[in-house]
Amino acid sequence: MTMAKDQKKQPRPKAETPKGFRDYFGADVTERKAMLDRIAEIYHRHGFDPLETSAVETVEALGKFLPDVDRPNAGVFAWQEEAVPGGGSGDWLALRYDLTAPLARVAAQFRNDLPSPYRRYAMGPVWRNEKPGPGRFRQFYQCDADTVGSASVAADAEICGMLADALEAVGIARGDYIVRINNRKVLNGVLEAAEVREDQAEDVLRQIDKFDKVGREGVLALLTEGRKDDSGAFIDGVGLSEAQAAPVLAFLTSKGDSNSETLDNLRAAVGGSGIGAEGVEELAQIAGMLAAMGVGEDRAVIDPSIVRGLGYYTGPVFEAELTFEILDEKGRKRQFGSVAGGGRYDGLVERFTGQKVPATGVSIGVDRLLAALRAKGLAGAEDRGPVVVTVMDRDRMADYQAMAADLRAAGIRAEVYLGNPKNFGNQLKYADKRSAPVAIIQGGDEAARGVVQVKDLVLGARIARDASHEEWKSQPAQTEVARADLVAEVRRILG
Amino acid sequence: MTMAKDQKKQPRPKAETPKGFRDYFGADVTERKAMLDRIAEIYHRHGFDPLETSAVETVEALGKFLPDVDRPNAGVFAWQEEAVPGGGSGDWLALRYDLTAPLARVAAQFRNDLPSPYRRYAMGPVWRNEKPGPGRFRQFYQCDADTVGSASVAADAEICGMLADALEAVGIARGDYIVRINNRKVLNGVLEAAEVREDQAEDVLRQIDKFDKVGREGVLALLTEGRKDDSGAFIDGVGLSEAQAAPVLAFLTSKGDSNSETLDNLRAAVGGSGIGAEGVEELAQIAGMLAAMGVGEDRAVIDPSIVRGLGYYTGPVFEAELTFEILDEKGRKRQFGSVAGGGRYDGLVERFTGQKVPATGVSIGVDRLLAALRAKGLAGAEDRGPVVVTVMDRDRMADYQAMAADLRAAGIRAEVYLGNPKNFGNQLKYADKRSAPVAIIQGGDEAARGVVQVKDLVLGARIARDASHEEWKSQPAQTEVARADLVAEVRRILG
Repeated sequence: MTMAKDQKKQPRPKAETPKGFRDYFGADVTERKAMLDRIAEIYHRHGFDPLETSAVETVEALGKFLPDVDRPNAGVFAWQEEAVPGGGSGDWLALRYDLTAPLARVAAQFRNDLPSPYRRYAMGPVWRNEKPGPGRFRQFYQCDADTVGSASVAADAEICGMLADALEAVGIARGDYIVRINNRKVLNGVLEAAEVREDQAEDVLRQIDKFDKVGREGVLALLTEGRKDDSGAFIDGVGLSEAQAAPVLAFLTSKGDSNSETLDNLRAAVGGSGIGAEGVEELAQIAGMLAAMGVGEDRAVIDPSIVRGLGYYTGPVFEAELTFEILDEKGRKRQFGSVAGGGRYDGLVERFTGQKVPATGVSIGVDRLLAALRAKGLAGAEDRGPVVVTVMDRDRMADYQAMAADLRAAGIRAEVYLGNPKNFGNQLKYADKRSAPVAIIQGGDEAARGVVQVKDLVLGARIARDASHEEWKSQPAQTEVARADLVAEVRRILG
Repeated sequence: MTMAKDQKKQPRPKAETPKGFRDYFGADVTERKAMLDRIAEIYHRHGFDPLETSAVETVEALGKFLPDVDRPNAGVFAWQEEAVPGGGSGDWLALRYDLTAPLARVAAQFRNDLPSPYRRYAMGPVWRNEKPGPGRFRQFYQCDADTVGSASVAADAEICGMLADALEAVGIARGDYIVRINNRKVLNGVLEAAEVREDQAEDVLRQIDKFDKVGREGVLALLTEGRKDDSGAFIDGVGLSEAQAAPVLAFLTSKGDSNSETLDNLRAAVGGSGIGAEGVEELAQIAGMLAAMGVGEDRAVIDPSIVRGLGYYTGPVFEAELTFEILDEKGRKRQFGSVAGGGRYDGLVERFTGQKVPATGVSIGVDRLLAALRAKGLAGAEDRGPVVVTVMDRDRMADYQAMAADLRAAGIRAEVYLGNPKNFGNQLKYADKRSAPVAIIQGGDEAARGVVQVKDLVLGARIARDASHEEWKSQPAQTEVARADLVAEVRRILG
């Protein structure tokens, strides 16, 4: 009682989702779940085991290193534990910012118990303490698959093939996607062949990352003397000679009509570099294994123009793109673009144990892939609401409940109207809001005669839109059937 | 490069799950998911829509009121947002501690968009900032279903029936569970009939909560003059007269052999109290509706001895108990006990809008129900690992990948060994750790002859355990088949 009084004095709390967060309703939840279930099925069939780590990690275990180079200011949501009495200050805890850092912690913590190599997949929310903005959320889903403890590029090939399978499993048709594969070692070989100094390497990486945007000539200028950008500002070049830039450009443009042609071009580009030759040989092995797995070059292909992530990964890198066109916000056609990326990285477990453990993995952009499925009409969740049993006589709720129970026992989604039944129009408005395909009506008269009215709301809406007044008055969308035939009639309408 | 050097100077981070948190591996994830999927299917069929709110709420929206009376010190994990430049201090945010508080926020925030009544279910982790202890975790799953905006006890009846259906859907046999239903209004009527003063009501509630433990005589003593507890300490009584205590005890022990007998007993216990009569009538309606829905008294029953939660809820309360026996940690038989509870509550949305919105709901204890399924051997996830294709010749990885791909194309879970293949014994140890049912072996000799060795690891393990040395040497668990027959042979062994 005192509590209620206290609360009255305080202003009411605002009912708002915190800034940068969002809630998912109905089909938002089921469509994503259906997609992730199909992906999980493919991962499982490839021998990957699910792992669900706690959402919370110690800040110490997370480290301060966020992998996304395009989100340099990304931070974490962190707080300090209460001090332990007599035990000094409390640990700092934080929400995970991705699924890889927790995998690193788990791989180190349970290294004596886990199989090695350890294949795992993980799906779940991650949190970023960023300034919220349009389309930029502070909680979002990730869906990762990684193999920890295998140095073999067979692990990379497997993940590329699995990614192609996963995209088809969720409904993306063959020909509407492509997995592109590149290798950081080839780039390292090219830099060696070009005699790029170690202190220039990072600059070179930054410039070739613009290949998509500025093209061959643009990158050539940026690697050598610099260029003016669109705004007219002059961008300094790295200062390579044209002769030095040549192998880098040869690398970026070495994609041929087949993997074998591309590999030949790459062999030329790396010249006499040992690491370069190793990198090309790895790509050749991946190409061979994909072919053996029945994954053709129309599904996964060697493509050295893929440079995103080359700075972060240490060996093969991969990216899945959807190649069909959609209309962007301005109504222009454009390719849908990247929905997944990954590659090989070392040092995952090293932070914890001092031992290098090779690992490779891929992360699917859950929201982007779901958006793609929606754009293609493939999200596939049922958007039909339940059959609504209306309430004409509130004393006979048990009868209405029995009708809904009969429908459910036949596998039909059904519910009784639970609001105030006084206004029947409100009940039909409710059925409309629920996207109900059918409404059931039984007043006292019908009950006495042992019948129910079954209203086909889909047909009814069409008639209301298209039919003449005469047709409408004949109420073809409403049928009277015996109570015992209720389930059969609803089933007939649902088809 | 500088980063690596800096890191070397720092001590290595500890690879540890934060205290009170845990990680879920393999079957832990899939078994829980399979259970929740089956529950969601039942909820969906009853017209409930999924809702997934953000894990983070403003502290203001959460409020400071935790519903679990047995966890009075429960707190939240909270942190303050960075100050907005020129805009004062940042909001306090926190992880949700249950799924009801976010529902309240959503029901208020989206009240103009949501159907009314709004049936929703939610499944996901919640967080409690508590002192970790044995079996007490700071992140755990909840699974809730609630109907917001219906004052009708039809909503309560529906949830009780749905709960019974959900328990059967996950595998609990009829007869192994019971949903018990009580009503706070009946208790209020009893208190009125007993002329308990308002300032005594809370004390009375606290004492009847001990009914399970101390029984009829114990509660009688506690309601009147007090009693000695097991340790010999004297517990003060509430100070009622025996005449006043009588209706309370009549209420607690009014369960008869049938709902109709129980309802008669309750009518007597509430005497002339209006609120009490209303409460009994509500229970009678619920009983009637459950019968109409085909939910017999062997599945859901009126039981006034259920007092847990009576202090929190405002109308009907329900609790699902598993009635089969398990062995506790000390090897003693005991009933499994409660796995779900809920009831009717007001004031859900009122904090935000000032308007009372009636609501009723149930929460399933996900970990407890899963533990029950495991105890009965019903958790049902496949514990068979993948077929492991071993690597005899590392230059022929593509061949091994092709074998795994063939198996997967036939729907069989399969993987290639991706560790260092030098030591074949390690590969078989790996297959064992993976619980692989079958290993595939193909050396150069077999490859030349176009055959593979298919090793039945389950049969092999049985032979190694039971068979004579001679039998063992004949290797009945290993078959040589043509490469083209690989899939058929594996399928035969998997049965």
